[in-house]
Amino acid sequence: MVDATSASLLLRLEIEDLYARYSACVDGGQLEAWPDFFVDDCIYRVIPRENFERGLPLATLAFESKGMLRDRVYAATQTLFHQPYYQRHIVSGLRILGEDAGIVRTEANYLVIRTKTGELSEVFNTGRYLDKLVREDGELKFAERLCIFDSELIANSLIYPI
Amino acid sequence: MVDATSASLLLRLEIEDLYARYSACVDGGQLEAWPDFFVDDCIYRVIPRENFERGLPLATLAFESKGMLRDRVYAATQTLFHQPYYQRHIVSGLRILGEDAGIVRTEANYLVIRTKTGELSEVFNTGRYLDKLVREDGELKFAERLCIFDSELIANSLIYPI
Amino acid sequence: MVDATSASLLLRLEIEDLYARYSACVDGGQLEAWPDFFVDDCIYRVIPRENFERGLPLATLAFESKGMLRDRVYAATQTLFHQPYYQRHIVSGLRILGEDAGIVRTEANYLVIRTKTGELSEVFNTGRYLDKLVREDGELKFAERLCIFDSELIANSLIYPI
Repeated sequence: MVDATSASLLLRLEIEDLYARYSACVDGGQLEAWPDFFVDDCIYRVIPRENFERGLPLATLAFESKGMLRDRVYAATQTLFHQPYYQRHIVSGLRILGEDAGIVRTEANYLVIRTKTGELSEVFNTGRYLDKLVREDGELKFAERLCIFDSELIANSLIYPI
Repeated sequence: MVDATSASLLLRLEIEDLYARYSACVDGGQLEAWPDFFVDDCIYRVIPRENFERGLPLATLAFESKGMLRDRVYAATQTLFHQPYYQRHIVSGLRILGEDAGIVRTEANYLVIRTKTGELSEVFNTGRYLDKLVREDGELKFAERLCIFDSELIANSLIYPI
Repeated sequence: MVDATSASLLLRLEIEDLYARYSACVDGGQLEAWPDFFVDDCIYRVIPRENFERGLPLATLAFESKGMLRDRVYAATQTLFHQPYYQRHIVSGLRILGEDAGIVRTEANYLVIRTKTGELSEVFNTGRYLDKLVREDGELKFAERLCIFDSELIANSLIYPI
């Protein structure tokens, strides 16, 4: 009992720590480090809830490898013309949905607050993460991260990772 | 020490899991499953902070049995005329206030973000949960959940459970 | 392994509990109790992210002892002319950054929702806590709490502690 409990507690803590480091990375503007939260052969999608629930494939962002994530970082920091803004992630309600064949499936609610230069902070994007985590060199990484957001309206200014 | 610690950690995890499943249920629109988070002889109230702190009984919603919760679900899904919206719960600051005679008293801050169809996400309701939890068939359930919200103004469109 | 794990789990729980009690204190309007979360020789600052990242010293609030915190409480409750409001703290993403010479360094994201009398709840302030915790009579206290907020614009009505 104690051993199973310890293992389960440790896994939970590890996942919470992964989530916290991910938030700190993207909120801190360390975009170059963001792809390293993923395995090479990963999936990252930001998708409206409507589309996800109806099984429609259309996503606001859809990347399928760590290379594509790196391209995105390059675009966000070098080429996309945009007004800079800060993000702040608030994440709660972590659920471990299951563990199978080395893949841990998790879910959590998230809220991103955006602050544009010289403006007040505002609700930017909210929804849930639906994740698949795997262990690489002993460390948990995202094999898949879906960001399923509640509003159909998303500012066309979604520049940085959710 | 380890045993007491393990027990206390497990209880805390169990409560966090309960809260996470509750949020996922109401945010996911699975309203039919919502009453099952409660015991038969339960109390569920959504009440303005002003009234709660002054001891005034007036509540926005007040239900006193699982049957009344089921009626509410029926009303929300079948009869109440309203514009549909999504909810997203963010919960933090869980505190275990005490444990006595099989009742665990807990508290946490909550924030609900609302997204109406075709609109941006916005702050809908915030406050704290004040809960009494009991064990039924080995599982933690709500004997009482008070949602004490900060704004006197609450849209008359409070349709789904907080 | 189990012992180190238990110790680390316990420390994490203790910090989460400290954060939760802090939020409950300031959100519950128990301002008189707020200074007791700090050691005598403490630092408390509310500082814009821009200034913090550029190493500029200008802070919105800057206190350097528990006595100054008590003065602030006196001002906030007795002398500052202001429209009263409620606060609600949502905190997530706790990270234990390190532990050295009895000082535990931690970080977390926070969001404060403000509710003025007769108005709707709104995003008030968001950012991250950067903390130094020490043990005093067995209990964790803040030796330093920096509230580094994302918006340059902060209402001049920052009356209560973040």
